[in-house]
Amino acid sequence: MKKYVIGTDFGTLSGRTVLVDTATGEELAESVLAYAHGVMDGQIPTGKKLPANYALQYPTDYLEVLRTTIPDVIRKASVSAEDIAAMAIDFTACTVLPIDAEGCPLCMKKEYENEPHAYVKLWKHHGAQKYADEINALAKQRGEAWLDIYGGKISCEWALPKILEVLREAPDIYKNTHRFTEAADWLSLVLTGEETHSAAFAGYKALWNKETGYPADEFMTALDAGLSGIVGTKLSENVLGVDSIAGYLCAEGARLTGLPEGVPVAMPMIDGHAGITALNVTGEGDMMMILGTSSCQMINSTVKTNIDGICGYVDGAVIPEYCTYEAGLAGVGDVFDWFVHNEVPESYEAEAKERGIGIHKLLREKAMKLVPGESGLLALDWLNGNRNILVNSNLSGMILGLNLGTKAEEIYRALIEATAYGTRVIFEQYEKYGLSINKVCVGGGIAQKDEMMMQIYADVLGKELCVAGTTQAGALGSAIYASVAAGIYPDVVTAAAHMSRPPIKSYTPIPENVSVYNTLYGEYRRLYDYFGKENQVMERLTDMRR
Amino acid sequence: MKKYVIGTDFGTLSGRTVLVDTATGEELAESVLAYAHGVMDGQIPTGKKLPANYALQYPTDYLEVLRTTIPDVIRKASVSAEDIAAMAIDFTACTVLPIDAEGCPLCMKKEYENEPHAYVKLWKHHGAQKYADEINALAKQRGEAWLDIYGGKISCEWALPKILEVLREAPDIYKNTHRFTEAADWLSLVLTGEETHSAAFAGYKALWNKETGYPADEFMTALDAGLSGIVGTKLSENVLGVDSIAGYLCAEGARLTGLPEGVPVAMPMIDGHAGITALNVTGEGDMMMILGTSSCQMINSTVKTNIDGICGYVDGAVIPEYCTYEAGLAGVGDVFDWFVHNEVPESYEAEAKERGIGIHKLLREKAMKLVPGESGLLALDWLNGNRNILVNSNLSGMILGLNLGTKAEEIYRALIEATAYGTRVIFEQYEKYGLSINKVCVGGGIAQKDEMMMQIYADVLGKELCVAGTTQAGALGSAIYASVAAGIYPDVVTAAAHMSRPPIKSYTPIPENVSVYNTLYGEYRRLYDYFGKENQVMERLTDMRR
Repeated sequence: MKKYVIGTDFGTLSGRTVLVDTATGEELAESVLAYAHGVMDGQIPTGKKLPANYALQYPTDYLEVLRTTIPDVIRKASVSAEDIAAMAIDFTACTVLPIDAEGCPLCMKKEYENEPHAYVKLWKHHGAQKYADEINALAKQRGEAWLDIYGGKISCEWALPKILEVLREAPDIYKNTHRFTEAADWLSLVLTGEETHSAAFAGYKALWNKETGYPADEFMTALDAGLSGIVGTKLSENVLGVDSIAGYLCAEGARLTGLPEGVPVAMPMIDGHAGITALNVTGEGDMMMILGTSSCQMINSTVKTNIDGICGYVDGAVIPEYCTYEAGLAGVGDVFDWFVHNEVPESYEAEAKERGIGIHKLLREKAMKLVPGESGLLALDWLNGNRNILVNSNLSGMILGLNLGTKAEEIYRALIEATAYGTRVIFEQYEKYGLSINKVCVGGGIAQKDEMMMQIYADVLGKELCVAGTTQAGALGSAIYASVAAGIYPDVVTAAAHMSRPPIKSYTPIPENVSVYNTLYGEYRRLYDYFGKENQVMERLTDMRR
Repeated sequence: MKKYVIGTDFGTLSGRTVLVDTATGEELAESVLAYAHGVMDGQIPTGKKLPANYALQYPTDYLEVLRTTIPDVIRKASVSAEDIAAMAIDFTACTVLPIDAEGCPLCMKKEYENEPHAYVKLWKHHGAQKYADEINALAKQRGEAWLDIYGGKISCEWALPKILEVLREAPDIYKNTHRFTEAADWLSLVLTGEETHSAAFAGYKALWNKETGYPADEFMTALDAGLSGIVGTKLSENVLGVDSIAGYLCAEGARLTGLPEGVPVAMPMIDGHAGITALNVTGEGDMMMILGTSSCQMINSTVKTNIDGICGYVDGAVIPEYCTYEAGLAGVGDVFDWFVHNEVPESYEAEAKERGIGIHKLLREKAMKLVPGESGLLALDWLNGNRNILVNSNLSGMILGLNLGTKAEEIYRALIEATAYGTRVIFEQYEKYGLSINKVCVGGGIAQKDEMMMQIYADVLGKELCVAGTTQAGALGSAIYASVAAGIYPDVVTAAAHMSRPPIKSYTPIPENVSVYNTLYGEYRRLYDYFGKENQVMERLTDMRR
C-alpha cells in the first residue's frame, strides 16, 4: 500500500515541500526553493516601474517550486515516485491572477508583459485600497448581508478590490481575462488539467458562501457597470469544499512533478489554515496562531456569529465540524525585517559579524536584557496597515517615547511588544463575541527561534502558549489533507490525530510582567483608538504620500 | 594702541577661542579643544555609574581650553600677548557646580570624587525634573510673581531644580558647598581672583531679577527647610550687569592663559546670547536663531511682557536698550546625531565611506530629493524633552507614518521638519504676545552646512532667513563684549556695528512648499496639543522608564 504523501506550502518568498509518512506524520524529507522573482514591488521584469504599495509575483516561480522540490524530496527520502499516494498544496491568499481560456497567465503573454495588472497580485499588494473603500461604502449603503460575515469591512488584500483595480486601471486586461483565479486554483488546473476553485479561498477572500454564492450581480453592476455578469464568467462558480478533491495528476502535471499520472491532488488550502491539522488544533476553542511575515489567529468554534473587524469565518472550510474564524496582523516579521534593514546601525552589524551571529539574534540578545517598560517606548505596529480590527491599510506605524539615549534594541523590542498588543486586540474581540479561547498553539519559524518574543506574547496575552512541533505546519497540514484525498483516513480530524505534531515547548505568563504589560496595553489601546478612530492623521498623510 | 581682543566660547563638547581685530571684527586666528571628559552621562571618572538623564562635566576641561587655545591663537595670529586689549568668555547655561570657600570645585576634592552631585551639572542634565515640577507647583500655588516672567513654568535645566536635587539627594554635598556657581562665573573667579556673578546667567537661569533679586527666603523655606537662608550664602547676590566687567587677570589667570596680568576680563555671557552682537542683531524685532545641538530663538524688543511657555526675558542683560526674550528647542542637532548613531543602516555608512563623504551629508543628499509630504511621515521633535512652549522634559519623541518602505533619509528629513514645526510654535507665540519678528539671522554650524534644512525652515516658518557670516558667532560675540571691556568702543551696539559679520546668504520661502507645510504644521500642532496636554502617555512612560 502506498503510504507516503507530499505537501507543498507556497509562502510569500519561497515554496517548501515535505514528504510524509501517513502512519506517523513523520517528515522524511524537505526541500525549499525561493521564488526567482521574489516579491516585485519596485518593477516588473520588463523594467517598468511600479507605483507604491504594489506587490506582484511571477507565476512560473510557483511551477519551478513543484519541478524542483518534489523530485528532491523523493530523492532525499529514498522512496519511489510510485509510492506517493496523493499530493496537496497550500498557498498564500488572496493571491490572484488573470488567465486566458487556455489557463495561461496573461503576464506570460508577450502582448501583456509590460502591464502590471496582468501579473499575480500577491496577498500584500495594497494598490487597491481605494477600491476596497468604495466596495465597503456601497455594501454598507445597500445593507449587503455578506458584509457582516467579514466584520463589516473587507480588506484591500481580497479578490474583489484587486479585480476592480484591474477593471478601472487596465480595462483591456479585464476585457481579455477569461478567469480571475487564485494562484492556488491555477496550480490545481496545471496539475490536474481540470479547473476547480477551492471553497476556502472563495469563502475567506472572494465573498463567496455556501448558501448564497458570490455577491449578487445587482451589487456588482451598481459597483461598476463593467462588472456586470462577472459571476459565472470571469469568477467561476465551480467552487468545491475541503471534502472534495481537485482531481488527478494529468500528463502535464506528472511531467512537472515527476510523479505518475493519476495521483490524487487534494483541494488546495490557504497556507495559514493548512497548519491547523498539523498542530492538531481540532477542538472547540482551540486556536492556531502563526507568526511569520504577518500573523494569523484562527480559532475553531461551534458558535456562528459575525464579529466586527475580524476577517471572517467560513463554515466547515477547514474542519467540517466547525466555523473557523480568521483574524490577523498585517505585519509582524515584515515589520522587524523593515527595522533590521533600515534602522540598525553599522556598529551592531559589525558586532553581529564579529560574533558570527545574525542581526536578529544580536538584537534579541540585547533586547532580552530589558524589563517591560524600561525603554519608555510604545509603538503602533501598523507599518503594513491594520487588519486587526480596524481593517484599514491607510493606517501606518508609530513609535513614541524616543529619547536621545534610545537604542536600536529598545525599538526592536517595542515593535515586538506592539505586535503582541495588536494580537491582544484580536483575542479580546473574539472573547467579546462569545468565543472562548481554549488552547493556543503557535507555529511559524518565529515561535521556535524567538524565546523572547514568545515570552512577551505570553505575558501580554496572559495565556499559556504552546509551540508547534514543526516549523513546516503548512506543508505538513497539506500532507494531512493529501492523506484524506488518498483515502488513507476517512476525515481530516482522524488524519490529524495520527499525523499531527505535539507541542515541543510552552510559555506561561510571568505575573510581574503581566502587570506592567496590562498598564502598557491600556496606553496602546488608547492610542489605538485615537489614531484608529479619532484623529485620521495617518490616513491624511498616507493620501499625501500617494 | 592694543587693538586685539580674545573671545572664548564654551560649548557642550568643546571650547573655541578666536583672536579678533577690534577695528574690523576680522578673526585672525581660531583654536578649538574638545573636553577630555566630554559629557559624562554613563559614569563619572571613578567608574561610578550614573542614573538615566544625567549629564555631568569635569571642570578642569574648561581650564584646559584656556591653557591651550589662547596661546594657540596668539601664535597662529603672530601677535604678541602684550597686544591683547581684553578677553571675554561665553558659556552654556545653566551649567552649575558647587565650590568650596577657596573656589575649588567639590568634585576635584578626593573626599567627594565619587559623588555625582559634586560635579558640574551641564545644561542638559535632566535629573532634576521632579524638583522642577515641585518648584512650579509651589510657585503657582503661592502666586509667585517671578514665575510669569518665565512663561509660567521653569525648566529642570535651571539652577534651582539642580540645587534642590543636590540638597535632597546628596545633603552632605549641599552642606559642604560654599557657593553654587555657574561654570562661567567660576572661570571669572579663576581668571581674575574675584568672585562675581553675571546678571545674564542669574536672570535667565536662576530666577534673579534687577528689581527683586532671587525668590524670597519665605518661598525657599516653604520649598524645603534646608534651603532656608540660601540667598546671600550659597547663592551669591553679587550679581553684575553686562555693562560691568568681571575684573582683571590675576597671577593665576595670567599663568593659565599666557596673557599678561591686568588684562580686563568682561562679564561672561550665555553662549547663545553672545552671538547676537556678532550678527548685528541689534534692532527692534531682530531675531537671532542659533541652530546647534539644541536651538535658541532670541528676539530684541522694547515690549516688556510675560509670555506663556517662553523661557523668559531679562531687561538689558544682552543689549542695554532691549528686553531680550529667549526661547528654544531642547534638541536639534542632538536629535539628528541620535538618529545617525542609532538608526542608520550599514549600507548607508558603506556608501558614505565609498564616496568619502560624511553620513549627515549622504542623508541630506538623499533627503533633498524628497518633496514635502512625500514620505508620509510626521515626527514630534521632543527626544530631549520640550521647552517650546510646554516646558516639560518628560515629553519624548515620536515618529508617525512609518510603513514597510520607509527609508532612513525619510525619517531624517521628518526629524528636521519636526524641529522646524517646533520653531514655528515659538514664532507664533512671540507674535501672539505682540512681538513682531523683523529680520531673522541664523547662526550655528548647521546654518552654513545644511542648505536643505535652511530651506525647510524658511518654508515652514514662511520667513526669509539670513545666514550669519560666521560659524563662531559665540566667540566673536564674546570678542565684541571684550572690546567694550577694553574701552575701545563705548557700548556694545557701536562695537557690533564695527565688528559684526554681515549675512552671507539668505533663503526665501518657496510658495508651493509653504502650502504643503502649512497643512503638515496643522497636523503637527494637533498632535502637539494631544501629546502635550490631552494624553499624558509620554509622561507616564517616562516615569516608568525611570
